[in-house]
Amino acid sequence: MANDKKLVESITSMEDDFAQWYTDVVKKAELIEYSSVKGCMILRPSGYAIWEMIQQELDRRFKETGVENVYMPMFIPESLLNKEKDHVEGFAPEVAWVTHGGNDPLAERMCIRPTSETLFCDFYSNIIQSYRDLPKLYNQWCSVCRWEKTTRPFLRTTEFLWQEGHTAHATAEDAEERTIMMLNLYADFCENVLAIPMIKGRKTDKEKFAGAEATYTIEALMHDGKALQSGTSHNFGDGFAKAFDIQYTDKDNKLKYVHQTSWGMTTRLIGAIIMVHGDNSGLVLPPMVAPTQVMIIPIMQKKEGVLEKADELQKRLEKVCRVKTDTTDKTPGFKFAEQEMRGIPLRVEIGPKDIEANQAVIVRRDTREKYTVSLDELESRISELLVTIQKDMLDRAAKHRDAHTTTALNYDEFKEAVATKPGFIKAMWCGDVACENKIKEDTTATSRCMPFSQEHLSDNCVCCGKPAKTMVYWGKAY
Amino acid sequence: MANDKKLVESITSMEDDFAQWYTDVVKKAELIEYSSVKGCMILRPSGYAIWEMIQQELDRRFKETGVENVYMPMFIPESLLNKEKDHVEGFAPEVAWVTHGGNDPLAERMCIRPTSETLFCDFYSNIIQSYRDLPKLYNQWCSVCRWEKTTRPFLRTTEFLWQEGHTAHATAEDAEERTIMMLNLYADFCENVLAIPMIKGRKTDKEKFAGAEATYTIEALMHDGKALQSGTSHNFGDGFAKAFDIQYTDKDNKLKYVHQTSWGMTTRLIGAIIMVHGDNSGLVLPPMVAPTQVMIIPIMQKKEGVLEKADELQKRLEKVCRVKTDTTDKTPGFKFAEQEMRGIPLRVEIGPKDIEANQAVIVRRDTREKYTVSLDELESRISELLVTIQKDMLDRAAKHRDAHTTTALNYDEFKEAVATKPGFIKAMWCGDVACENKIKEDTTATSRCMPFSQEHLSDNCVCCGKPAKTMVYWGKAY
Repeated sequence: MANDKKLVESITSMEDDFAQWYTDVVKKAELIEYSSVKGCMILRPSGYAIWEMIQQELDRRFKETGVENVYMPMFIPESLLNKEKDHVEGFAPEVAWVTHGGNDPLAERMCIRPTSETLFCDFYSNIIQSYRDLPKLYNQWCSVCRWEKTTRPFLRTTEFLWQEGHTAHATAEDAEERTIMMLNLYADFCENVLAIPMIKGRKTDKEKFAGAEATYTIEALMHDGKALQSGTSHNFGDGFAKAFDIQYTDKDNKLKYVHQTSWGMTTRLIGAIIMVHGDNSGLVLPPMVAPTQVMIIPIMQKKEGVLEKADELQKRLEKVCRVKTDTTDKTPGFKFAEQEMRGIPLRVEIGPKDIEANQAVIVRRDTREKYTVSLDELESRISELLVTIQKDMLDRAAKHRDAHTTTALNYDEFKEAVATKPGFIKAMWCGDVACENKIKEDTTATSRCMPFSQEHLSDNCVCCGKPAKTMVYWGKAY
Repeated sequence: MANDKKLVESITSMEDDFAQWYTDVVKKAELIEYSSVKGCMILRPSGYAIWEMIQQELDRRFKETGVENVYMPMFIPESLLNKEKDHVEGFAPEVAWVTHGGNDPLAERMCIRPTSETLFCDFYSNIIQSYRDLPKLYNQWCSVCRWEKTTRPFLRTTEFLWQEGHTAHATAEDAEERTIMMLNLYADFCENVLAIPMIKGRKTDKEKFAGAEATYTIEALMHDGKALQSGTSHNFGDGFAKAFDIQYTDKDNKLKYVHQTSWGMTTRLIGAIIMVHGDNSGLVLPPMVAPTQVMIIPIMQKKEGVLEKADELQKRLEKVCRVKTDTTDKTPGFKFAEQEMRGIPLRVEIGPKDIEANQAVIVRRDTREKYTVSLDELESRISELLVTIQKDMLDRAAKHRDAHTTTALNYDEFKEAVATKPGFIKAMWCGDVACENKIKEDTTATSRCMPFSQEHLSDNCVCCGKPAKTMVYWGKAY
């Protein structure tokens, strides 16, 4: 059958061509389909279901910290976008402009939100009057649009899905506390749900968000040694408040400007999952974010009793995990390949001989280890294995990251590391943007962050040799 | 306190000015805020939380019928929109056009989706090859944009949130079955979750969706006697499949066109909840869709033990309902007014005397009935009352609808009914669009639907007197 063959054909191996391997996985695991719209992708059920898992868990965690969801318009009138100078300079070159409604030209053109700081500021200036109205801890789930020249599924697309949190606080301290709280929430989510370890730190001024006082970031290392910025949290100070006149009457009866933050994560996280955990058989999903955690595959399913037994196991396992049974008329071999391509963490094989022996075969997706398990212990073994896989995946990713992190004490070491050792490079920096620019020009590596966990590697900037101020993680990035 | 006064100020009464009452409720219950973007509203936390309740429950029901979620681009290239003739004629006059990306004009302008049939068809033509690929049962949650001249919160806005289901089937029968299944799902949801009774029926050709073979609708009656189309389900036959060349190889090895459906519900439902259940104290939410079902309001909360007791009740009630406690420093009277404005179904008052008597006072939002209840029975009484309120609200809405449904046997009766009895009018129709047009011109009433529950009122069309084909529900509509 033509349809069956398509999936079992092997994909490009990641050692041969990582970019092509990535494209093969997103297509063959049916995460996305390309659309007729330039730079936009279609999220297919398998891809969107991962996003739903991410949403559900993040949303729960946001709400635990007092965050409430809202929905803002997708349009920003040009005059509103122009209100904060740095912000408009950063975003105007990459927005889509709506110029006509129906057959009529608009009096003022509007862009499709590339991010919604300006809309939230306009909103806050209307609803915040008193210290009693603070803090405002709002978030929205939506899509945004940035006109990109080169696009890649999940990593960089013209339109993408994300959440954007926007908060307003009475004091600078409250805003800073929230900025760091959300960064920590992001890092914890990535490590404990997506099994991706993160470097937490602050962006250099060159790399910070347009209009922010400080941008914090979590950075992950992909299997090919490139870095991926996975979430950012910005402290705006009172810059936007002054541009949009967001003032409140404090307890002392004085008018004061609010202090604001914003923070976001996107469908890019799905790209991170693929590139951190995937292998040459396809996707490998951490159990906590896998829409289906266990696939039961009946063997010789036409034999009497096999489908009935599979159904019985399905019903039993539904109580402990997200489980499906593949009862299609495909061959077991094809079903295995499909389950592996889609990254489902465990498969349970059950055939006539297994039934006779009151057992099933469980196979781990991540390590391919096989276990023959008594049916009496099925639920407990599956539950244990899901926990083990989750933990092992994080451990492997951390080991890979550490094995691909190099320390460079001088510029020769730095250049050699970039050329020969894909991964993070830890090196000291003087704080001068000139060195950052030179490093980027010479090597294409960029500063990923100034990590919270600082190490004193040497006294001198790796680039200019002048006194160093801080340790920086550098790397080539997506 | 200036802030406190704002809310307790009485709103316009619905008898004086229903439209102003509606606007007052959406603003003072803090469901929405107007934005700087023409025709677009901001969904505030109290408004968005209702949408989240609706989403959660509908999404669960969709998935039970095998529907999977996807996400499609927000843009439609002009050439794609133009592919189905009726469809483009219906929507082109009211779409927003994107003409520039960053600083560059686009080679082809794109509209922002007013609905996504064309995108789904383009997608389906790529992924459907064989009968094995059918059915496709996809849905997406997103926003769409229709350039409206007159807008009104929830009822008609330039951008609004909705879900749009799009399915593809092997046969015409399968498509019709799905179209009706979703209509029934919608009606059941509205009746059993939103407590709004629905008339189910088919739209006349004049009122059907641009490009559909048949449009089915659920119609509700608002408190002011106007109708609100609350959800639609369309059977496209193979019209779109032919325009977009969506063919599959059937078991008999022949190429056949698929048959398609689409169906949608929107944030308009929140408008329906307001206009069916609301009263002169504000919003009244049916318990099943209320983000907060019970508000505990401590009385004399500075007295020793009151806040502790309120907290104890909060913890107990969390096990049986969605409950909050208002511990702000506002007066109890203000808190009552606020809880009523926001439509929270029950409030629990607990003060020193109540504590001493081991009791609490429960007040229903819908009827204002008060119950003094032993604290030992609090959970069971609250649970019972929430069920009772839900049921009573549906019953009252059905009674109101029935009391505002008039039968007209001839055109004089029809015109008098439109002029003097706000509500639905049941009347026979010959099937000729000329009568539909005349009725609209003479009375502004439109055909709402040809109900599935037909009655034989007379032999003649209420307008022209010629032989009647069908009974129609008519009414003025939002």
